[in-house]
Amino acid sequence: MIITLKKNAPQEEVDHLYDEFEAKGLQVNIIQGERFNVFGLVGDTSTLSDRDILANEWVENVQRVSAPYKLANRMFHPEDTIVDVGGIKVGGKEKIVIIGGPCSVENREQICRIGKEVKECGADMIRGGAYKPRTSPYAFQGLGYQGLLDMVEARSETGLPIVSEVMSADKIDEFVENVDLVQIGARNMQNFDLLKAVGHINKPVLLKRGMSATIEDWIMSAEYIMAAGNPNVIFCERGIRTFEKYTRNTMDLAVIPILKEKTHLPVIIDPSHATGDWKLIEPMSLAAIAAGADGLIIEVHDQPERAWSDGAQSLKPEKFAELIKKARVVAKAVGRDV
Amino acid sequence: MIITLKKNAPQEEVDHLYDEFEAKGLQVNIIQGERFNVFGLVGDTSTLSDRDILANEWVENVQRVSAPYKLANRMFHPEDTIVDVGGIKVGGKEKIVIIGGPCSVENREQICRIGKEVKECGADMIRGGAYKPRTSPYAFQGLGYQGLLDMVEARSETGLPIVSEVMSADKIDEFVENVDLVQIGARNMQNFDLLKAVGHINKPVLLKRGMSATIEDWIMSAEYIMAAGNPNVIFCERGIRTFEKYTRNTMDLAVIPILKEKTHLPVIIDPSHATGDWKLIEPMSLAAIAAGADGLIIEVHDQPERAWSDGAQSLKPEKFAELIKKARVVAKAVGRDV
Amino acid sequence: MIITLKKNAPQEEVDHLYDEFEAKGLQVNIIQGERFNVFGLVGDTSTLSDRDILANEWVENVQRVSAPYKLANRMFHPEDTIVDVGGIKVGGKEKIVIIGGPCSVENREQICRIGKEVKECGADMIRGGAYKPRTSPYAFQGLGYQGLLDMVEARSETGLPIVSEVMSADKIDEFVENVDLVQIGARNMQNFDLLKAVGHINKPVLLKRGMSATIEDWIMSAEYIMAAGNPNVIFCERGIRTFEKYTRNTMDLAVIPILKEKTHLPVIIDPSHATGDWKLIEPMSLAAIAAGADGLIIEVHDQPERAWSDGAQSLKPEKFAELIKKARVVAKAVGRDV
Amino acid sequence: MIITLKKNAPQEEVDHLYDEFEAKGLQVNIIQGERFNVFGLVGDTSTLSDRDILANEWVENVQRVSAPYKLANRMFHPEDTIVDVGGIKVGGKEKIVIIGGPCSVENREQICRIGKEVKECGADMIRGGAYKPRTSPYAFQGLGYQGLLDMVEARSETGLPIVSEVMSADKIDEFVENVDLVQIGARNMQNFDLLKAVGHINKPVLLKRGMSATIEDWIMSAEYIMAAGNPNVIFCERGIRTFEKYTRNTMDLAVIPILKEKTHLPVIIDPSHATGDWKLIEPMSLAAIAAGADGLIIEVHDQPERAWSDGAQSLKPEKFAELIKKARVVAKAVGRDV
Repeated sequence: MIITLKKNAPQEEVDHLYDEFEAKGLQVNIIQGERFNVFGLVGDTSTLSDRDILANEWVENVQRVSAPYKLANRMFHPEDTIVDVGGIKVGGKEKIVIIGGPCSVENREQICRIGKEVKECGADMIRGGAYKPRTSPYAFQGLGYQGLLDMVEARSETGLPIVSEVMSADKIDEFVENVDLVQIGARNMQNFDLLKAVGHINKPVLLKRGMSATIEDWIMSAEYIMAAGNPNVIFCERGIRTFEKYTRNTMDLAVIPILKEKTHLPVIIDPSHATGDWKLIEPMSLAAIAAGADGLIIEVHDQPERAWSDGAQSLKPEKFAELIKKARVVAKAVGRDV
Repeated sequence: MIITLKKNAPQEEVDHLYDEFEAKGLQVNIIQGERFNVFGLVGDTSTLSDRDILANEWVENVQRVSAPYKLANRMFHPEDTIVDVGGIKVGGKEKIVIIGGPCSVENREQICRIGKEVKECGADMIRGGAYKPRTSPYAFQGLGYQGLLDMVEARSETGLPIVSEVMSADKIDEFVENVDLVQIGARNMQNFDLLKAVGHINKPVLLKRGMSATIEDWIMSAEYIMAAGNPNVIFCERGIRTFEKYTRNTMDLAVIPILKEKTHLPVIIDPSHATGDWKLIEPMSLAAIAAGADGLIIEVHDQPERAWSDGAQSLKPEKFAELIKKARVVAKAVGRDV
Repeated sequence: MIITLKKNAPQEEVDHLYDEFEAKGLQVNIIQGERFNVFGLVGDTSTLSDRDILANEWVENVQRVSAPYKLANRMFHPEDTIVDVGGIKVGGKEKIVIIGGPCSVENREQICRIGKEVKECGADMIRGGAYKPRTSPYAFQGLGYQGLLDMVEARSETGLPIVSEVMSADKIDEFVENVDLVQIGARNMQNFDLLKAVGHINKPVLLKRGMSATIEDWIMSAEYIMAAGNPNVIFCERGIRTFEKYTRNTMDLAVIPILKEKTHLPVIIDPSHATGDWKLIEPMSLAAIAAGADGLIIEVHDQPERAWSDGAQSLKPEKFAELIKKARVVAKAVGRDV
Repeated sequence: MIITLKKNAPQEEVDHLYDEFEAKGLQVNIIQGERFNVFGLVGDTSTLSDRDILANEWVENVQRVSAPYKLANRMFHPEDTIVDVGGIKVGGKEKIVIIGGPCSVENREQICRIGKEVKECGADMIRGGAYKPRTSPYAFQGLGYQGLLDMVEARSETGLPIVSEVMSADKIDEFVENVDLVQIGARNMQNFDLLKAVGHINKPVLLKRGMSATIEDWIMSAEYIMAAGNPNVIFCERGIRTFEKYTRNTMDLAVIPILKEKTHLPVIIDPSHATGDWKLIEPMSLAAIAAGADGLIIEVHDQPERAWSDGAQSLKPEKFAELIKKARVVAKAVGRDV
């Protein structure tokens, strides 16, 4: 960490800072500039907060050299982490996983029917929302626990692992018991209490990117989960908020090579939420695979115009099957399998 | 709500949509265009989701005319809501409230000492964080319940109401019992389960704006709290994320006249988080008052460079006292009191 | 166009608006709502400005149904436009074009040397900046006219068409005479006088997306060029400004299918500026091709660390050659050639 | 400037960099870290580009300590610059200037009539657009040179200086001859050729902030003008693009104290473009004054609903007069005059 001090800082303030950093086990190097002096801190700076150091009025600026994350950092864990989701391996050089299913579970028959359809198309897992984060309190809020039980039935009938979103810590037991991959939604990416809670469970976590989160914010949220004891985190890009109006969000595919360089965790892409438009799902899915994604999570509904939520960004099963076929060809072109 | 249908929509789809809207008690008017037909829906459309209607492939676009919120909407509640916080009235033409205190409670002595200082400066309430949302799991996370008890002591010693942030539903009882104004932080603005939870309590809620939330998103979060039964919501602008690097966030003061036009709830401003820089707090506070704010919440610390968090955006008590004096003059200029 | 009028609008205002629209040759349909009345305008509304109509205090909102662009609109020009750049065809089902070269022309020897290198790697055109838009007035501003002449030499030696950026209308003759594809940079995307100027020339134009432009803004800039008489516009995505710090900009690949749906013009991608990091160029290039791009424009330098500008985002020739090989495989997977 | 080098950088690369910086007259200090080495550069680093240094693969990151601007920098010019606009002084402790007038000049009678109205209300200068930057090529593009001549007439009839926007370098003579304050619009803030051109004239320049420009970008654009020889630059905040839909842009008032700390130039605020809504102009104007603005530029039209452009954000003269009265009271409260 590089700390720039104003030239006119009183010696006692400089000494105080020096002592404080040394007391934290850091080695401090000093360079004298014409208008500024600089402290170079060597050692583990992850417990320091840039902004807290800036509170000192003699500090001009603070520059972090090492990343603020440790457990997620590839520097300290060079091998890829492969996450096991109900027997399906995600990450590394494994087969690219395809997750399909409706935005919301509407009833047992619907999720079982669509579950079987996505399996036939070639999907590896089933997604379905039981607890739904909706902007309006008057919109459908999901079937809740019953929805999870319906998903369990869909798993029984298909043999595919199931994914669903948890929205609050007090429901976590329901998820541990019933679900194979526990999703943290974009709006809860910095719900730190929920992150700590899923850090204590023994199920893998699918961590969606917050709507305006930087990649570093996102990795720090993974670090929360890992620091609490759960090493099985999968990143899921779902688009960020931008000024664009022709898409719901802007899908940021550069996250794939970046997360793979900075961390050792798998990355999957959600082109449904990222674009908000079923017509864009296929090209964006192929692009994600070409960029090195470890998986795709796609909304599939057999009657999108009757879906209880997000039909506009859902593929019909036949389109989904077609997409998987094309995905196989592109995956092969970049040395992977679907 | 205005729904534009593609001209080539099959009649049976048009009929189906028509029936569906009528079944929800809406009156449907139709106009024929050259390239499009339009449905004009008359009635309560707040339960409809724009995106769900867009799922129908024959729908070209959807335009909401009435706001999607009802309880927060000034159209249905023309008088200002005045929120009572431990005897202090906030909103309407009431005195502008000033809330001061440290970012974090560090220990009982500290919060009591700073509490007395802010009272002497002229503050109306004391703020202090017991549970802290920090980007890094390795940063100080707050004193927790003990911090709340320390704040209660500061209230006893000063007589001022106290404000603190709740981060998860399972701690709400601690807040109901101890705190006068329960804060929902920016990162939890769309933690809908937490919103519902504070909707069930009988304490007023200070709802911070999410980092990239639109004003409408924000009002919908207030609507969540109100729909669950709690009418006492105060909005708090704390800046939004932009590309700017010279400030921590960008303070959006236009929210003041807009929220006062669209809703009947009070609006207070947090220039500490909005700017991240203590030197900017005074001009931004005066600007907020000139724009019509009902209050200010400001971080105050007597040793900012030793603060456990956010010292860079904390005022020293003497600066805080000076700010309040100037605020009184500007408030008078716009017909209010501080 | 759908115009929502406040219910209490005086009849004479309603009549005035009605007459005004009819005078512009539009047909006006009216629906009566409970709280609002609606005008549905049928006809060519491209000369109307939404905001100008909103100036009428009785207008609640304005919703455009038809796109505000005509010449660029695929609805009125269903076939793909194929743009000829010095004999190379761009767009439609043509071969995907690869453009390579340094950010800046540094001297004749450099551009000729790198020109030959990119040709050997398989590039179809050479890029090079002679006039450089730099944030600082103290940074290298390009060789100017001499740089263009050096590029002409590189074309002579390689036979490849050349691309360079024009920054002001008074230099356009230099470009018409010397360059095969005239680039409008991101910072000038809404320099409307420059757009009109390149609308009058008979050379194709490469129109980069502005740093915070929406796709509609961008198409409207193409419309400016086309309305002035030049139909040969190629869109070039170079990333948009977002909060992300690990990349220079955020590359928005959804523009590819969207521009191809809304317009009939070719789309190429600039992964160098979009990411700002040479390590990200390869995965983002493959992603662009998988998403349907008609071309790539990539910065190539044989000594990036000695480049006079933008070395950080330049590929060395050997990496560029490797990228082209991989691009061929991915292109084949989506039914195209490189 | 602080440059962090990877620990495994070959000695010859380190030596090469060292020599290169020394050759530019900079003094280089080195500190050794555990994982990184650091160069601290002392001297004038304004000609260095951060990104160009980053092109060296052994450089991990680059941190600028001194600002990249010199002429605009208050550090080297501690006194306030007072800009004289046709006899009206702007900046420092001078009277806050009020500029009023229509978005577009529509004809001579209109600009003279409105000019007299704004004068009666208390305005110090008249604004009016002759060349209009419009998103659509089909929208009214301004009266051009005739519009400038009409403004000159308005000046003759009122005695007030006039402000208008220049859109291209080839029209600059018209502005030098006729206009008192030459405006560079938001879309041209980084049209560097135009900046250089107005740097060569002897009229003051009103530099609007680009729609997504950071404050540093903006200061660098002022630096372009100053480096070309024109020291009379006034900053004008007109709002930045954000996700908010209830306002046209987001007005960033923190720019006032920041620009006044970092530079010595005056700052005025345009609440019309910043909000896009006449109802918000008054509260935002008062806020701007409370925050320390040196002036306001406001759109005024006596028939906003008939204005040829931007009527939605124009005040009627009576509202404008009322605003000025209130502005006087707020100005007094912060020790200034209007």
